Amino acid sequence: MPIEGMLVDLSGVFYVGGDVLPGAREALLRLRQMNKPFRFVTNTSRKCRAEVVSRLHVMGLDVEPHEVLTAPLAGRHWIETRGLRPHLLVHPELLPDFVGIKTSPANAVFMGDAGETFSYDNLNAAFRVLQTGAPLVAVARNRYFQESDGLSLDLGPFVAALEFATRTKAVIVGKPSAEFYTAAVESMALDPREVIMVGDDLEADVLGALDAGLRAALVRTGKYRESDEASLQGTAAMVFDNVYEMLLNI
Amino acid sequence: MPIEGMLVDLSGVFYVGGDVLPGAREALLRLRQMNKPFRFVTNTSRKCRAEVVSRLHVMGLDVEPHEVLTAPLAGRHWIETRGLRPHLLVHPELLPDFVGIKTSPANAVFMGDAGETFSYDNLNAAFRVLQTGAPLVAVARNRYFQESDGLSLDLGPFVAALEFATRTKAVIVGKPSAEFYTAAVESMALDPREVIMVGDDLEADVLGALDAGLRAALVRTGKYRESDEASLQGTAAMVFDNVYEMLLNI
Repeated sequence: MPIEGMLVDLSGVFYVGGDVLPGAREALLRLRQMNKPFRFVTNTSRKCRAEVVSRLHVMGLDVEPHEVLTAPLAGRHWIETRGLRPHLLVHPELLPDFVGIKTSPANAVFMGDAGETFSYDNLNAAFRVLQTGAPLVAVARNRYFQESDGLSLDLGPFVAALEFATRTKAVIVGKPSAEFYTAAVESMALDPREVIMVGDDLEADVLGALDAGLRAALVRTGKYRESDEASLQGTAAMVFDNVYEMLLNI
Repeated sequence: MPIEGMLVDLSGVFYVGGDVLPGAREALLRLRQMNKPFRFVTNTSRKCRAEVVSRLHVMGLDVEPHEVLTAPLAGRHWIETRGLRPHLLVHPELLPDFVGIKTSPANAVFMGDAGETFSYDNLNAAFRVLQTGAPLVAVARNRYFQESDGLSLDLGPFVAALEFATRTKAVIVGKPSAEFYTAAVESMALDPREVIMVGDDLEADVLGALDAGLRAALVRTGKYRESDEASLQGTAAMVFDNVYEMLLNI
């Protein structure tokens, strides 16, 4: 089956921090020349999609909002298709992505990486909504991330806290969940077997996509570690030096 | 083997909220007349021992500080016997119980029920200490507690958060841990088989004590539910209507 569509991770593939990776602009050009549907996919939940796009523009990467599928927007879709009204436990900068959604009376809880907004009172308010039997929907389960002065708590520990308090399991709507990959593939009206996902994160990008029935490629940029390749032995995943090389060879 | 010492829970056994239970004062009198060592044991970690004792006095229950063993003080003992310097993630009102302990440079984390002190920044600071390989020591793993306006998050979810972030397990120093019961028995210089624990909490009080090799009795006051008795079938636990009746019959 030929490859008819592409899902492309952003951070660690096109840039690291605020720096564009070598070949990234050429890769973007090539992506457009291939004339096949594609989506940029990201788990970012500390900023809204408009801000993600704006920062790409600043780096000289001209990406359109409709080309970017973020995990919070996938979450909004999950919630809206079920007619739920989410209590939002998210970073204030994410709120633009939830404009117009009905949130009251809440019958679901939606969690992003809220950072300092994870206060006792905010967590307790979410807990009380969950006590009514509302489902817990979370972007991801990441444990921590690197900051300039050390590692810091990501969303995962706070998801674990509410799961423990309520004896339930959260629905994960971002990478590596099959929910996320299925929605991304459906947005291009393709079959998962025709779509390749490329990223630098072994679990979220490559193994998650394979589990959801897509093809997958790991790039040797960003958080890639040589040991990742051993974990791909026996899978159908491909490995490339960078995203430009991948686009030239599929 | 005759019973030579007693461990007695406080909340739900002598009082509920701010109300003394019927027979509680008589039970306290009887306890003193029996002329056997005893300790009041409690998992409370939102206030220091002096405050626990002071509130008992207000209720007309004259208890001496040295008769009360709290889980935070058991934690302090656990930490000090190992020469550790704890980063304290606790309620401000608990701090008097930790006066004089060396906390810097931290090589352990001690968690009580910190309530609103569980902010993102405070949790992250504890996480960074744990990243150095320091052990996580926690009073308990309770999920939630009843407040006047609903259930609220207890310590357990925040322990679960840091456990998830660091892929480690906390040492629990309060009830129902064997650590706690063993320390309480040792403080009376007795054998566990000579000591009976009485309380209203099936797991923390009765099953925890039995697991640590003590005898145990459940009282039908406080958070007792009739269904608790089925869980005690086949164990050596006794059941009494209240603590006074228990003291008259052992």
